[in-house]
Amino acid sequence: MTVNYCLRRAVQLHANCIAIELHGRQITYREFYETTENSARKLAALGAAKGDRIAVLMHNSPEYLDLYYSVARTGAIIVPLNTRWHINEIVFTLNDSGSRMLFVDERFAPLVPQIRDAVPALEHYIFVDSAEWKTLSTDPAIDLTNYTEPGEDDIAGLFYTSGTTGGPKGAMLTHRNLYTNAIHTLVAPLGLLKGWKWLHSAPMFHLADAGAIHGLTLAGATHVFLPTFDPEETMRAIERHRIDIVVLVPTMLNMVLNHANFDRYDLSSLKRILYGASPMPLPLLRQAMDKLPCEFIQGYGMTEVSGILTLLAFADHRFEDADRQFAPVKSAGKAAPYAEIRVVDHNDKDVPVGQVGEVIARGPNVMKGYWNRPEVNAEVLRGGWMHTGDLGALDEEGFLYILDRKKDMIKTGSENVYSPEVESVVCAHPGVLEAAIIGVPDATWGETIRAVIVTRPGARLTECELIQWCRGRLTAFKCPTSVAFTDTLPKGGTGKVQKNVLRERFGQPALSAGE
Amino acid sequence: MTVNYCLRRAVQLHANCIAIELHGRQITYREFYETTENSARKLAALGAAKGDRIAVLMHNSPEYLDLYYSVARTGAIIVPLNTRWHINEIVFTLNDSGSRMLFVDERFAPLVPQIRDAVPALEHYIFVDSAEWKTLSTDPAIDLTNYTEPGEDDIAGLFYTSGTTGGPKGAMLTHRNLYTNAIHTLVAPLGLLKGWKWLHSAPMFHLADAGAIHGLTLAGATHVFLPTFDPEETMRAIERHRIDIVVLVPTMLNMVLNHANFDRYDLSSLKRILYGASPMPLPLLRQAMDKLPCEFIQGYGMTEVSGILTLLAFADHRFEDADRQFAPVKSAGKAAPYAEIRVVDHNDKDVPVGQVGEVIARGPNVMKGYWNRPEVNAEVLRGGWMHTGDLGALDEEGFLYILDRKKDMIKTGSENVYSPEVESVVCAHPGVLEAAIIGVPDATWGETIRAVIVTRPGARLTECELIQWCRGRLTAFKCPTSVAFTDTLPKGGTGKVQKNVLRERFGQPALSAGE
Repeated sequence: MTVNYCLRRAVQLHANCIAIELHGRQITYREFYETTENSARKLAALGAAKGDRIAVLMHNSPEYLDLYYSVARTGAIIVPLNTRWHINEIVFTLNDSGSRMLFVDERFAPLVPQIRDAVPALEHYIFVDSAEWKTLSTDPAIDLTNYTEPGEDDIAGLFYTSGTTGGPKGAMLTHRNLYTNAIHTLVAPLGLLKGWKWLHSAPMFHLADAGAIHGLTLAGATHVFLPTFDPEETMRAIERHRIDIVVLVPTMLNMVLNHANFDRYDLSSLKRILYGASPMPLPLLRQAMDKLPCEFIQGYGMTEVSGILTLLAFADHRFEDADRQFAPVKSAGKAAPYAEIRVVDHNDKDVPVGQVGEVIARGPNVMKGYWNRPEVNAEVLRGGWMHTGDLGALDEEGFLYILDRKKDMIKTGSENVYSPEVESVVCAHPGVLEAAIIGVPDATWGETIRAVIVTRPGARLTECELIQWCRGRLTAFKCPTSVAFTDTLPKGGTGKVQKNVLRERFGQPALSAGE
Repeated sequence: MTVNYCLRRAVQLHANCIAIELHGRQITYREFYETTENSARKLAALGAAKGDRIAVLMHNSPEYLDLYYSVARTGAIIVPLNTRWHINEIVFTLNDSGSRMLFVDERFAPLVPQIRDAVPALEHYIFVDSAEWKTLSTDPAIDLTNYTEPGEDDIAGLFYTSGTTGGPKGAMLTHRNLYTNAIHTLVAPLGLLKGWKWLHSAPMFHLADAGAIHGLTLAGATHVFLPTFDPEETMRAIERHRIDIVVLVPTMLNMVLNHANFDRYDLSSLKRILYGASPMPLPLLRQAMDKLPCEFIQGYGMTEVSGILTLLAFADHRFEDADRQFAPVKSAGKAAPYAEIRVVDHNDKDVPVGQVGEVIARGPNVMKGYWNRPEVNAEVLRGGWMHTGDLGALDEEGFLYILDRKKDMIKTGSENVYSPEVESVVCAHPGVLEAAIIGVPDATWGETIRAVIVTRPGARLTECELIQWCRGRLTAFKCPTSVAFTDTLPKGGTGKVQKNVLRERFGQPALSAGE
């Protein structure tokens, strides 16, 4: 099963269903298929062939969706670039992937001269005008019948992730990988259905959103686009298009719920909100569930597994037992049917149920490896299992609890502190809009805990007050001993706080941070 | 993904859910897993090893379910035998598969001496006493940790189908094949859910029922067993266990609905009835939907694709437009997401939408081939597509209409007549309980059409009357020109009428059949 088949199947089963809804225009799957065929012919005319890398630096748009399918049609490999990257990271990724073509929209066209100088191997720059829906012009001389369908173990995309070290690495996701993830969006509890409208509000270069592209097409659902995330535009689009389902990562959800105009929009069409990509503070979840009477589903996963590893069903969002150590509402849910999961120690031996270890996974959704990184692959994929770098625990019912990134865990004295637990308490303070916890080097304790916070507009909050708040709610060794105030937290593509940046900026031992 | 993982996953996610419900006893997935581990140790003690064939000749029981998993645990291949077979077919299959062990229950134990003489390669006969739930005794000396998990492309089972010629052929279904089919039971419109109770009323040797075994386990659903099908026992079990879902092929459904005690049972727990395996006459479907207010879902498929190819959703059971040539209610539904389907001509070229051709399919659910039949495989699987031998057509929306088996289509004059269309009209006659249509050699027309019918108890029906009935409802060339009366129609494992037997018995040109 391939990306190509996703669309071919949509034409067989959902030809007259709406594939794309734009301002005042609807495009059926049959029409969309013709569009992608035209685009594929154009790509072929430019020389796109099996295995070529074709990079895309664009905001969300129908053209982006078109490229996901038309690139696959030629057997080439799509390389979606992070739109938040610095030019240096873009250049690095284009060179690392050896991309032959780059698609840019009007927002990124101005970068082309700089890129051209720094990426000599790039042969073609294609400007996509997303001001109106149009197909790339067709070269009728190109006959696609000579293009054979890629195999399911061929690479469909290189999805770059900001790794821990050494710059971005390209996760090689095969057609089978992406198809498997698509199936994970069709089974319970996510269960995408025909006719549902999905708002692409999260960036389409990232699998938090792109992971749904193929499942939506399989199901015969409708794609609606927001070029970039904006809380008010999101609400406006939900109301206008009567959106059924949307991904809102915690940061986005927070911005929507706290928007001054939240009450002005009719969001009643929403059936499901899928959240994930970073830890969800319980108070935010509870607030969201109070204000938005739709089903909430959590997805946990990562680029390296094509998106989804576990899903938390709406029925498991129960707050009654939230105080228990293992309460499903605090978990990331249960393994999707193609994601076999274990929690292991340093020797890759299973730890007992309830114990913390590294989460590892295998299945047809796990990447082939990182592009040109044989040493990293040997380590990360050792024994045939993807080592996620996440610390977690399984309970008796198979709910997976993600405690922290291995590298973000704080060691203070002889204790391990998982930052999301502390962040959840800090975020619950009414004066806090956003917060992140980092470890700060300390001569006595190894590390001490520092909270970096963004206060709510108008809130007056002191370091001392926040530390007191935590003392009343957390074991002593888990409490921050210092607080740094800032205007904004640095975030990655899906709103995940970039702790390495925070540590650089706020991680110096300071006088106020000592005892 | 493997059969083994299905159960391991159930233990991780559904350890305390009920795997099996018997008269007055419930067994959790954790307990069931322990049972299968014990059985696997016993199998290992008998020498079961990777690739060995282990045959099962038993009625439905928890022990049968146990064997599906414990055989896989040793890496061996299960060979489920058709319980309706003549001893000659059993012997043929045991020899053809090269089975080393045979499991029998008390019903089939008397056949062992005969089998022993005719199948010298069989090393072990194991008698399973299904009078009570018990595990095979454990040999503690056997350590299963040396048994590595089979690969997903290893064969999990040989499922013998009565082919058109040359006796039964063993379809080699891999772990991936069976897992793929399991996923097809989890997506819409079938969507098996945790906690549902499934009644194994159809035989577990056949994929019409066995195709659900792995999906039920993945979902955390409960297995309930009926040793063999009986209409009243089925109703009794549905009432007693509050069954949620059951497979009832048309013959079974007919027997249930027409049973004298139908009204005495409470069948209100039923959420879904899955039907298929042979054409469903519309009047029977309508009657069933009137009498049983649950969702009806049709599955179309075959052993060679591990069970399911297409599914007809309940929402598509609309009778309003049943007179249209292509009305979804008359179709077999739409392709499951891992079943790519085409309808082709004799040169394997796609025929246009709405035209009749052979249904071919590919995907990870398609068998590896028939056991030891390289020539047949080269033909049946040519070009990487499974040639089903079924004649069908696709409509604009991807609904697949199955018209007939290629070999059962009748050619009369220059016209093609598809037997189910005629059978549907014949069955609608109030005096007809069951009917099948066959072609009879004719000097003038090539073939003429003969109806073989079983009348309802007490009904008085003449040949002339039935032909008149058809003349009022069918184009002239589609009407039977002769009628044969019989007490019962010969049927295969899932109630599919064996037309080859019928043709032998009722296919001679007779005086009354001519013009």
